[in-house]
Amino acid sequence: MANKTITAPKGFMAAGLYCGIKKSGKPDLALLYCPTGAKAAAAFTTNAIQAASVTVCKAHVQNTPIYAAVINSGNANACTGTKGLASATVMCSKVAKELNIQTDQVLIASTGIIGHQLPITRINTGISQAVKLLSDSQAAGANFAKAIMTTDTKPKQATQTVEIYGQTVTIAGTAKGAGMIGPNMATTISMITTDIAISKPLLGKALKSAIGISLNRLTVDGHQSTNDTAIILASGLAQNRVLKKQDSGYRRFSRALNELCRDLAKQMALDAEGATRMFTVEVKGAAKKEDAFKAAHAVADYDLVKCAVHGADPNWGRIICAVGSCGVKLNPNKLSCKIGDVFVFRNGKPTDFNPKAVSAIITRKEHTITVDLGIGKYRDFCYGCDLSRDYVTINADYHT
Amino acid sequence: MANKTITAPKGFMAAGLYCGIKKSGKPDLALLYCPTGAKAAAAFTTNAIQAASVTVCKAHVQNTPIYAAVINSGNANACTGTKGLASATVMCSKVAKELNIQTDQVLIASTGIIGHQLPITRINTGISQAVKLLSDSQAAGANFAKAIMTTDTKPKQATQTVEIYGQTVTIAGTAKGAGMIGPNMATTISMITTDIAISKPLLGKALKSAIGISLNRLTVDGHQSTNDTAIILASGLAQNRVLKKQDSGYRRFSRALNELCRDLAKQMALDAEGATRMFTVEVKGAAKKEDAFKAAHAVADYDLVKCAVHGADPNWGRIICAVGSCGVKLNPNKLSCKIGDVFVFRNGKPTDFNPKAVSAIITRKEHTITVDLGIGKYRDFCYGCDLSRDYVTINADYHT
Repeated sequence: MANKTITAPKGFMAAGLYCGIKKSGKPDLALLYCPTGAKAAAAFTTNAIQAASVTVCKAHVQNTPIYAAVINSGNANACTGTKGLASATVMCSKVAKELNIQTDQVLIASTGIIGHQLPITRINTGISQAVKLLSDSQAAGANFAKAIMTTDTKPKQATQTVEIYGQTVTIAGTAKGAGMIGPNMATTISMITTDIAISKPLLGKALKSAIGISLNRLTVDGHQSTNDTAIILASGLAQNRVLKKQDSGYRRFSRALNELCRDLAKQMALDAEGATRMFTVEVKGAAKKEDAFKAAHAVADYDLVKCAVHGADPNWGRIICAVGSCGVKLNPNKLSCKIGDVFVFRNGKPTDFNPKAVSAIITRKEHTITVDLGIGKYRDFCYGCDLSRDYVTINADYHT
Repeated sequence: MANKTITAPKGFMAAGLYCGIKKSGKPDLALLYCPTGAKAAAAFTTNAIQAASVTVCKAHVQNTPIYAAVINSGNANACTGTKGLASATVMCSKVAKELNIQTDQVLIASTGIIGHQLPITRINTGISQAVKLLSDSQAAGANFAKAIMTTDTKPKQATQTVEIYGQTVTIAGTAKGAGMIGPNMATTISMITTDIAISKPLLGKALKSAIGISLNRLTVDGHQSTNDTAIILASGLAQNRVLKKQDSGYRRFSRALNELCRDLAKQMALDAEGATRMFTVEVKGAAKKEDAFKAAHAVADYDLVKCAVHGADPNWGRIICAVGSCGVKLNPNKLSCKIGDVFVFRNGKPTDFNPKAVSAIITRKEHTITVDLGIGKYRDFCYGCDLSRDYVTINADYHT
């Protein structure tokens, strides 16, 4: 498959351009269009403070079909009151007018600075231009990916193809930055397209499952922003027999979507602010599933572990400390920890490992920390990244 | 009061010296002795993995009287199995033998690297020397304070005097480093002495209360170590009428102890690794007390807030994000935030504050961030410190 962008699946046109939100002059408006209409599903931040785009998108995503999605970067439209809510609706109605569809058939997401009103006139002009630029070309998909970026250093894109009942189904996704990013930045946005024919409830189920093992397993600084949004649109043009129940076809699709989201999540971790490498924390032997995730998250989110990964230091003491203090049940005499495939702590005792060999494992782009709580049979995982001086520089020296 | 060390209250002798644990050659063994015997109370880490010293001290602190406390730095004696447990007991029995008391009349604490066995022969030699150096002088108290340090850049000491039923009661404390500090370091240790006459249960109650509003309200990196220990010894030599119930005398003592512990906690925040300033997060208007603390802790522990404080950036968006994502009830339309005495966010909307003036507030050694959740009447607080490049340097570049 040559096209690796969100225009790869059948039935999607995209555009991305600069409309005047960002001071930098970089692209800040992205538009997606599905002329035949799509089934839609979305997942949103659980932050108690939600951006205007989240409120509007939550309402619109209930509808079928959805024809378009508009995303702006550079301004989160969060903490902006009723005026901000009106702006989000205006963005949808402008897209609707240009494409001759209904306002509530347009989805929306925003990312950027919190607490500033959108420059709605510029955005409306930008939407008119974007509609003229809409194309199913790879270049158009790439422009969309660039236009949703904030402090990301590169666009994040992934594609998957999968055979469903004799037809080739394509899934494509693009995402922007993990971590609360930049000053007052509100992350993350994921836009996924697919040409599968599927019922709306099943599409929502597959998205929820995929987010659960990807974006929701990624921690850069431990918090959800006011704007986190993931959207999937399914055009149905792959002409497979419509998926209506959780059969083998659904499972194949779900696995491919999981893989795609995992790919995007890892790209986000590797491109988190100041990050130079990422790691996966696998926790097993937990008394319950929640404990396994809690422990994995505690390790992945612990600044001292993140610093140790940055310095390629096989500092198992910090891992054990994070696990011990996060409030999960464990057996101190069975507690074990591996970095890569090397036991650094086993059955409650340090091992006689080779520090240089383990340090070499940590210097890889990705490595896995495995913790066995030694008390049950449940497991879960979390993705994390290292903490560098650049993270502090990016987040301390820039002034709002 | 000239003497500001833990030998200030009547009845205490101290010593601190280098016995050969630390490679740096800095003091690493501290001894406290109360010849008349003292009432004792202690508070310990809630980490599921506990150092050998914690296990031993928990048992010994049940006894009355307690005559001595021994603390080593440079080695946490954590994750060291039955051999480590034996070493902790040997330390107590060596002190007991030298002072002609019982092993279980000696309290113990350790701080330093996790996973290494104590050099028990050197420590025993050190204990013999320390006993000879015991003195009630200020110099001896200061030596004790230095000998419990790890990566602390300066000793932390505080004293309080309070009139209890016509007698002057003195309280003195010393503490070492907040934050998991250094590579594999296990913190924090607090040693408090007082000459008040008080019942053991009341002493424990006062300590618990004081820790609750000081050490337990301090976050540097969000985790409790394997070794956190706070000990208080009361000699009773102030000759006040013995405090046996929660009367006005107890309340005066409790307030003074609170103040002392708050003082130590702030010294710890200001001397946390790489920290250049500290801040207090006050949360009010919460639906319940736990929510108030949860929100205060979420803000104080949020890397992006800590970076913003480091850069003196009045970045209220990060504060609001932390509060919104920590899972507490709030009213988005009443949510407000002040930095110092300046509203930066009020009733769900940004204010038109002067960024330079607010930035100047943040550059102070201490400032307060106030958040009103706008939904209830409960309040709580947390102390935090900024996150600097030096924190990363200290914790990434040093190898275990």
